[in-house]
Amino acid sequence: MTGWLAVAGLGAGDAALVTPEVTAALAEATDIVGYGPYVARVAARPGLTFHASDNRVEVERAALALGLAAAGRRVAVVSSGDPGVFAMASALFEALEAGPAAWQALDIRILPGITAMLAAAARLGAPLGHDFCAINLSDNLKPWAAIEHRLRMAARGDFAIAFYNPRSKARPHQFARALQVLRAECGAGRLISFARDVTKPGERLETVTLAEARPEMADMRTVVILGNSRTRRVGRFVYTPRQAEGA
Amino acid sequence: MTGWLAVAGLGAGDAALVTPEVTAALAEATDIVGYGPYVARVAARPGLTFHASDNRVEVERAALALGLAAAGRRVAVVSSGDPGVFAMASALFEALEAGPAAWQALDIRILPGITAMLAAAARLGAPLGHDFCAINLSDNLKPWAAIEHRLRMAARGDFAIAFYNPRSKARPHQFARALQVLRAECGAGRLISFARDVTKPGERLETVTLAEARPEMADMRTVVILGNSRTRRVGRFVYTPRQAEGA
Repeated sequence: MTGWLAVAGLGAGDAALVTPEVTAALAEATDIVGYGPYVARVAARPGLTFHASDNRVEVERAALALGLAAAGRRVAVVSSGDPGVFAMASALFEALEAGPAAWQALDIRILPGITAMLAAAARLGAPLGHDFCAINLSDNLKPWAAIEHRLRMAARGDFAIAFYNPRSKARPHQFARALQVLRAECGAGRLISFARDVTKPGERLETVTLAEARPEMADMRTVVILGNSRTRRVGRFVYTPRQAEGA
Repeated sequence: MTGWLAVAGLGAGDAALVTPEVTAALAEATDIVGYGPYVARVAARPGLTFHASDNRVEVERAALALGLAAAGRRVAVVSSGDPGVFAMASALFEALEAGPAAWQALDIRILPGITAMLAAAARLGAPLGHDFCAINLSDNLKPWAAIEHRLRMAARGDFAIAFYNPRSKARPHQFARALQVLRAECGAGRLISFARDVTKPGERLETVTLAEARPEMADMRTVVILGNSRTRRVGRFVYTPRQAEGA
């Protein structure tokens, strides 16, 4: 058996967002590796082995998957959203870099998926319809000062901004600080949307101005999308026109 | 018949990237509206009417689709990639804003898709594995000075950057200028990847340093991805680690 490794993006939540490419890889795999709740989305069948692990052990999980593929297994590493956006793909390459050179000859594929910000933007209208940034607000892997600098640069570039992992119980004050910075840079009238559990049961969408935004509107299951200076409402939707200021 | 309008993202090219949600909408539609080459991706069948139009008439096309839905038709507006990323969704809301108020009560859905930068990143490895920006280099709808300002802000925030529509025959010098700005801001050693016709026949991937990058490496069928200060190669892949500078 020739082994392979596919990092498969399961999309934002709804099964109707999983690409046929990912479905095919899951059907051909002998091993499913990933964070418990994502592994649980794959149906059991004879000959399929599950390797569920905890959060925050991404590099160890990736090394396990690489080792299995090197041993000839067909391994699907399941990831939420798109593996390349704040998910498993980077951890896979970190493990590849740190591991035996022979791993670099393995058949490795990254299979894209519908990442949360695109699913959220679609539900809201088109808030990312012009130039935009994606920022992970978790500071597990970067200092807060670096995050705040990025916020300011993105705001001064008049980008729309999608925020992942905006607010956790371990760091409840940082999103409040981010809102302060954004109010100072963008003004109180700028639109900001909170999309929780997008495409899942209990989905909740809310759009307010920065003046009205409260830190409690976000948690780790929320994607937050800040508009640019021209983002506006039309009916029940929020959208960013294709024209930039001054065009 | 109750009309509806779905703006459907066909993904980056490969049919295996089209979500089941989009496939279902296309199967239920009575009318397919879109730019000619995208409309041509939908198979003909009895009772299905095609409305193909030229490039650069997005708002007129959107108004046609809204009018059809208001008349009770089930309308799929086909878009490449993700409709919300430099594609048809914003034009739809521009037409909605300019049109009769009654249109705002229509059943309108945006169906996300695999946008080109995510497909390209997956093929390359994980160059967008940390905070990143997406910038449309076309200046049809914004002045070049605004684009250059955004380039500088994104570079100073140490974002990875995905560029859409980098270089057309009508404006061949702008991408050369963009490369100059990026060399000045990011240094000659920064990695930059060119992904042409991603997931399509003839796909071509190339990664070089900014010192080696030439404007001719890009055209309108190319997505260009600039790494951040920590983006590096591992084997045949390019990836951006999850840790920011200083973490």
